Amino acid sequence: MKQMSWDDAEIRAELARLKALKPFCYGLTNYVAANLSANVLLAVGAGPAIGTAMDWPGVFGRHAHAVWINAASLMSCGPDQIRLAARSAHEGGVPWVLDPVAVGAGAAEYDAVVKGLLEFRPAAIRGNASELVALAGGVGGGQGVETTLTSDTALPFLQQVAAELGTIAAVSGPVDYITDGKTTVSVGGGDARLTQVTGAGCALGALISGLLAEAEDRLTAVVAAHAIYARAAERASAAKGTGSFAVAFLDQLSLIDPAE
Amino acid sequence: MKQMSWDDAEIRAELARLKALKPFCYGLTNYVAANLSANVLLAVGAGPAIGTAMDWPGVFGRHAHAVWINAASLMSCGPDQIRLAARSAHEGGVPWVLDPVAVGAGAAEYDAVVKGLLEFRPAAIRGNASELVALAGGVGGGQGVETTLTSDTALPFLQQVAAELGTIAAVSGPVDYITDGKTTVSVGGGDARLTQVTGAGCALGALISGLLAEAEDRLTAVVAAHAIYARAAERASAAKGTGSFAVAFLDQLSLIDPAE
Amino acid sequence: MKQMSWDDAEIRAELARLKALKPFCYGLTNYVAANLSANVLLAVGAGPAIGTAMDWPGVFGRHAHAVWINAASLMSCGPDQIRLAARSAHEGGVPWVLDPVAVGAGAAEYDAVVKGLLEFRPAAIRGNASELVALAGGVGGGQGVETTLTSDTALPFLQQVAAELGTIAAVSGPVDYITDGKTTVSVGGGDARLTQVTGAGCALGALISGLLAEAEDRLTAVVAAHAIYARAAERASAAKGTGSFAVAFLDQLSLIDPAE
Repeated sequence: MKQMSWDDAEIRAELARLKALKPFCYGLTNYVAANLSANVLLAVGAGPAIGTAMDWPGVFGRHAHAVWINAASLMSCGPDQIRLAARSAHEGGVPWVLDPVAVGAGAAEYDAVVKGLLEFRPAAIRGNASELVALAGGVGGGQGVETTLTSDTALPFLQQVAAELGTIAAVSGPVDYITDGKTTVSVGGGDARLTQVTGAGCALGALISGLLAEAEDRLTAVVAAHAIYARAAERASAAKGTGSFAVAFLDQLSLIDPAE
Repeated sequence: MKQMSWDDAEIRAELARLKALKPFCYGLTNYVAANLSANVLLAVGAGPAIGTAMDWPGVFGRHAHAVWINAASLMSCGPDQIRLAARSAHEGGVPWVLDPVAVGAGAAEYDAVVKGLLEFRPAAIRGNASELVALAGGVGGGQGVETTLTSDTALPFLQQVAAELGTIAAVSGPVDYITDGKTTVSVGGGDARLTQVTGAGCALGALISGLLAEAEDRLTAVVAAHAIYARAAERASAAKGTGSFAVAFLDQLSLIDPAE
Repeated sequence: MKQMSWDDAEIRAELARLKALKPFCYGLTNYVAANLSANVLLAVGAGPAIGTAMDWPGVFGRHAHAVWINAASLMSCGPDQIRLAARSAHEGGVPWVLDPVAVGAGAAEYDAVVKGLLEFRPAAIRGNASELVALAGGVGGGQGVETTLTSDTALPFLQQVAAELGTIAAVSGPVDYITDGKTTVSVGGGDARLTQVTGAGCALGALISGLLAEAEDRLTAVVAAHAIYARAAERASAAKGTGSFAVAFLDQLSLIDPAE
C-alpha cells in the first residue's frame, strides 16, 4: 500500500490547482457542521454555498464546480431535496461527495434514503469506519455519529464499496485509507483531537469536494484532502484544549502553502 | 441551602463517571446552539448526535444513554418530531432534559408545545429565570430568549416545578439553583460573559444530559454540570473579549480533570 | 461623497445609543451564519433571538425592537414564515433589514420570494455587489453566495434601489457604500479576511438591525454598523490565520467602546 502525505509534490499540486480555480462548492450538510465546513473551504480558497433554500438544490447542484452531500442534512430538509441535489449533480456531470453520516446506527428509514443516493453515482464517499462498513452491507455498529470500529477493520469493506460502485472510498481514523478499489493509499499523522471538534469529519467531506472540482486524478484529489487535513492538524497540535485546537486547525488550513 | 462547587469530591466523581461511560447523548436543539452544544459534550468525553433526520427521533431517542430537548429546535423540526423524541426517551427509560427556551415570551402556540412535553416526564428542566417562572405558571416576561428576572426571583417557582413534576429543576444566573423540590443546592462563581456567548445556556442543557446518563443521584448529577460549567468559566476569565472567552471556556471544559 | 469612520463622534454616538437600549433583535437567518450573527449582537450589547419556531415569526416579528431577515433562512423555513416575519415587522412599525443572499445567482424561485419581500418595505437592504445589482434589475452574476462584481460597480444600482424603495441600501466590499438615494457615504478600511469568515456579511445584517432599533437617523445608523465592523476588523488584523481572525474580530466587537 502506498503512503502519501503533504510532503509529496503531487499533493501540493492538488492544493495549488484548487487555489487557482477557486471552485464554487455547493453543499447539503447538517447545521451542526455547516459553519466549520464553510470555513474550511474558505480557508483554502474555495467558495462554498450551503443549504436547500427553495430551488437551490436543482440549480446549484447542477452549476457548481463540485457538490458535497452530508446525509445528516436530512435534519433540515426532506429526502426529495437531497435526492434532487444528487441527481442534478449527476446529470450535470458535477462530481459530488457522499458523507453517509450515522448510516448503520439503527435508523432504518434514514439508512434507506442514504443508500438510495448511490444511484446518482458519487465521485467519492467518505465516512468513519462504522459508516463505511454499514454501507458495504456489514455490521457497522455506529453509535449515533460515532464509530465503534477502527479504520483498519473498515479497509476491506472500503475496497469493496469502491470497486462495486466505481467510486473513491475514504475512511478517517488514526490512519486514513483512500481507495479506488484497485489502488489504496494510506495517510497517517493528524491529531486525535480532531475527533473532539464537532463536524471535523463532515468538513473534510466539504474539502474533498473542493479538490474534486475539475480534478484529473480523483484518487489523488481525495488523498490530497486527507493529507492537507492531517498536516494542518499536526501544525495545530501545540494548542492546549479542544477550543484552541479548532481555531489553530482552521488557521493552519488558511496558511498551508503549496509553494512552501 | 447547600452550596456546592467543583471543589467537592462528589462533583468530581460525577465527571469521572461520565468520562468512564462516554455516554451517547442525543439532542434536539436549535441551530444557533447546536455546534457549541456538541463541542461541550465532546470536550468532556461524551458522544453527541443532534437533529431530527428521518427516523432519528424515535430510534436515537430510545437508544441513547441520555437525551436533551431544547424547545427552540422547533425552528427546524415540527412538534410531532420533538414529541416523538420525548416520548421515545420516556418509554425507553432514557433520562431526558428539557430546556424550555423562550417559554413565556409571548408566543402562545410555541408555549403550548413546550408545556405539552411535560407529559413525558423530563428527568431535569433547565432554563433562565423568566423561563422557569413561566413554566410554573407565573409571569416570566422573557424578551425573546433573554431573561428579565433574576435567578433569586425564580427560586420558589423552581421548587414548585420540581415538586409538582417530580423532576430536577435548575436555573442559571449570577447564582445557579438546582432543586428536586426538597433539597436545593446553589452553585456560585462562573463568569458573566457566559451570557454573551450565544448558546452557552443551551449547551449546559446538553452537558446535563451527559451527566444524567446512568446517574445514581440525579440531583448531584445536575449540580455537577452547573459546577463544572462555573469552574471552567472562571478558569477562562483571563480572556479579554467574548470570542476568546468562548474558546478558552471550551478549552477549560476539555482540560478540567476529576483527578486534579 | 462623504467618508465616515469610527473616528466620527456621530458613529460612536450610535453605538452608545445601542448599548443603552440593549435592543431585542429578532432574526431569520441561515444556519451557517446564525451562531456568528447572534454572537456579534451579544458582543455589542444587544439581545438576539433567531429562528422560526412555531408562532415566533408573527409574535417576535411584531414585538422586537428590530428585525433582520436573511433570505437564505429559506434553507430551514418556508416562504410563508419569512413573509409573515416581514409583514409583522412592517405592520408593527418595527424597522427590518433585508439581506438578499445569493439573489441573482440563478435560482429563479428563490429570487422571486426574495423580491416579494420588498412589498413589506425594509428599512435597510444590505448585500454584496452581485446581490445589490441583481435586486436593482441588473445582471448580478453571483456565484452562489459570492459576488463577482466590485462594490464600485454596484454603486449606481445601490442608489437606484434606495431611491425607488425609499430605503437605505448598503454594499460591502473593499470600500463599503451606504446610501439613502440622495446622500451616499463611503466606509473604508476593514480587513479582506472578513470574506474568509463564513457568515461575516450575514452577521453585519444582524448588527445593522441592532443599530436601526429606535434610530433617529437611519442612514447614520447603517453607516455606524459598517464603520464599527471595519474598525473591529482592523483591530483584529494581527491575527495570523482565518480562525484566529474570526475570534479576534468578535473580541474587538465586544471591546470597542464609544467612550474611548
